[in-house]
Order: sequence, then structure tokens, then C-alpha cells
Amino acid sequence: MNIHSILSGSDQLLESPEGTREEIMNATYLSLCEYGYAGITIDRIGKHFPKSKSLIYHHYDGKDELLQDFLEFITEIFEKTVPFDEAEGADEHLEAILDHVFMNPLPERREEFTRAMIELRSQAAHNNDYRRHYTRHDDYFIDGIEAIIESGIESDVFRDTDSTQVAEFLFTLINGSMTRRVTSNNVDINSIREEIDRYLRARLVRNEE
Amino acid sequence: MNIHSILSGSDQLLESPEGTREEIMNATYLSLCEYGYAGITIDRIGKHFPKSKSLIYHHYDGKDELLQDFLEFITEIFEKTVPFDEAEGADEHLEAILDHVFMNPLPERREEFTRAMIELRSQAAHNNDYRRHYTRHDDYFIDGIEAIIESGIESDVFRDTDSTQVAEFLFTLINGSMTRRVTSNNVDINSIREEIDRYLRARLVRNEE
Repeated sequence: MNIHSILSGSDQLLESPEGTREEIMNATYLSLCEYGYAGITIDRIGKHFPKSKSLIYHHYDGKDELLQDFLEFITEIFEKTVPFDEAEGADEHLEAILDHVFMNPLPERREEFTRAMIELRSQAAHNNDYRRHYTRHDDYFIDGIEAIIESGIESDVFRDTDSTQVAEFLFTLINGSMTRRVTSNNVDINSIREEIDRYLRARLVRNEE
Repeated sequence: MNIHSILSGSDQLLESPEGTREEIMNATYLSLCEYGYAGITIDRIGKHFPKSKSLIYHHYDGKDELLQDFLEFITEIFEKTVPFDEAEGADEHLEAILDHVFMNPLPERREEFTRAMIELRSQAAHNNDYRRHYTRHDDYFIDGIEAIIESGIESDVFRDTDSTQVAEFLFTLINGSMTRRVTSNNVDINSIREEIDRYLRARLVRNEE
């Protein structure tokens, strides 16, 4: 799967969708961006799908099943774009993740992608399947941050502290920032990032204020 | 307007809706709770409305206009439930707001209300009218927190610091916590609150660690 299009200027979800499923996922993404979650229909997805619409029904019983698959697909892409696997020191690693999340301004395609993620997430307010999905996603993200903090404590870069609590706090800030930056016009992302750095220097990083 | 029902056990938005508009707003709320944003129709609102459905069309051109009015209405209620007007010292005042927002568990009716607010907010990802609305709402909330911090700085309870930056940071945490607590099953609200208190002691409150 080639996900570079999110970070590049392409207006596709995938640089070059391969096979029918990826083409359907790509078409679903374009419909979501164009009409929002409430406006998605198989008809509209069909308009962005290069093959016959009947093929969509061959793969999925209906819109709900398709969107459930799409949710897994797009979350996997999101998780792959976050640099959890870099091998530098814990402090640089945490900074790389924050640099990625708090990039400002967001490239246009990543902003569009964030809008889609926020709309999908809000479905979890009334849908247990979506809520289970986002529970797993949050755990993945928090566990990733926690592992970096633990590694920093082991290598004596960070103070010995409650890594779970700090990780959940940081993820809640990331979630709030992602939500606000696509649902409000006045968000000062640089100020939030500056305050996070200040918090981390006071709370986590050794040999600082 | 009587909004105590959100904090009590009543399943109404309003304890006793007065007049046609409040009855329509109440019926819209019940539909939103039952079907989610994507499932709202005038027909479904009509089922919760004690008078003739035609009266809804007499007041509103259609669903979009009605939902726009509902958005103003429910946001006003939300803002009134947050204790911005209390007159204690700045530190107790900030604590009262955090106690209100991070109450755990949320009373069932407030949780339902939060779900509705999160679903409405996500519409701002693709709707400029909603985004303008939530920009105003965020500014209201951040200004409220900022005023408390300023008052604490003046009365020497808080350190002299960038009150705008701290207020936006706190509001982003509040937004992230509200979003996550209704879209994920695993949120440790008490841990987030504990970390906020720790942050405030280090950043804002005088004569502490």
C-alpha cells in the first residue's frame, strides 16, 4: 500500500490504488471528503470508482459494512504515518512524533485526511462498533508514546515517572488539537506545541528547568 | 429557560419546554440522542414534538435551518452549565470548572448531552457555518479560563505568566477529554485530571512544588 499521497500534493488517498478493494477504499475517501459522513452513499462512492458500481455490492453487503472496512483501512494508514518506529534517542523520538502531529500549517491533503478522521471518530458517540475501533486505536497510540517514555526512563534521558499517565495526557492533547484544528478557525497550534514542550521540560526531561 | 434537567435524571433537554421553539428544540435533542446526527429527519423530530409537525415547517424552512438554530440553542445551554460566574478565589474557581468538566463518571444525562455536542462539532469539519459557530464557542470558553487566570495573577495566587497560552492548553485538554470519553471505552479521566492538577501546580500556582 502506497500512502505517500497523504503527505504529498496528490488528491488521492492512495498514490496508485491496486486491486478492487483499494480502489473502493480510495473512492470512499473521495466521497467522504466531498460530502462528509452524513452525505456518503454507495451511488456517490460509485462516481469515484473506475469500475462498475455492481462490483461494490459484490464486495460489501451495503454501506455500513463498507464503511466499517474503510474505518479499519484509513486508521491503519493514519497509524503508519506516525513515526513510531524511528530508532533515535527517546527525547528525539518523542519530538519527532510531536513535530509530525503539530506540523503547522498542515499540508492540504493531511488536513483533509484529519477532517475525515474526526468525522469518522464522532460516529463512535452513537455506534458501539466505532467506539470499540477507536478504543483500540487510542490504546495503540498511547502504548506507542508510553514505550518511548519507558525507553527514555531506562536510558536516563527522562525522569522516572508514571509513563502511562504522561502518555494518556499527551494523547488527549493530540486528540484535542486534531479535533480543534479542523472544527475551529482560531486554533493557535504553535502555542499549544510550545506549552507541551514547556510541560515536558518540567515533567519529563532531565537536566532542564 | 430551565436547564436543570441536564444535571438531573430527566431525559428531557429542558425540564419543562415553554413555547413552540423550546418544544421543537427539545424534540430535536431527543431525535439526535436516538438516531445520531446522520439519522435526524423532520419526521423523527415530529415524533418527539407534542404538536402538529406542520408547525415545525411554519418555524423553519427545513432541517438545515432548524439544526442551525438548535446548534445555537444547545451551545448556550452548554455554556450556562459551566460555572464561569462563581465569585470565589481564582484557584478555587479554576478548580470548580475542572471539577465540572472532569466529573467522573458523568451523570447519564450529561454523558448523552456530551455525545450530542461531539457529533454536532464534527460537522464543522465540512461545514463553514458550524466551524464559525465552534470558533466562537471555543473563544468564549478560552476567554473564560483566561479571565480566571488573569484574576489569579492580579491577586498573586498565580504566577505572572502567559494566561492566553495556558488557557488554550487547558481548553485543548478539555476538548480532547470530552471527545475521548464518549468515543472510546478506555479513557482514564481521573488520571488526566491528576496530571492537569500536577501541571497547574508546577506552572501556575504559587507556593507549591
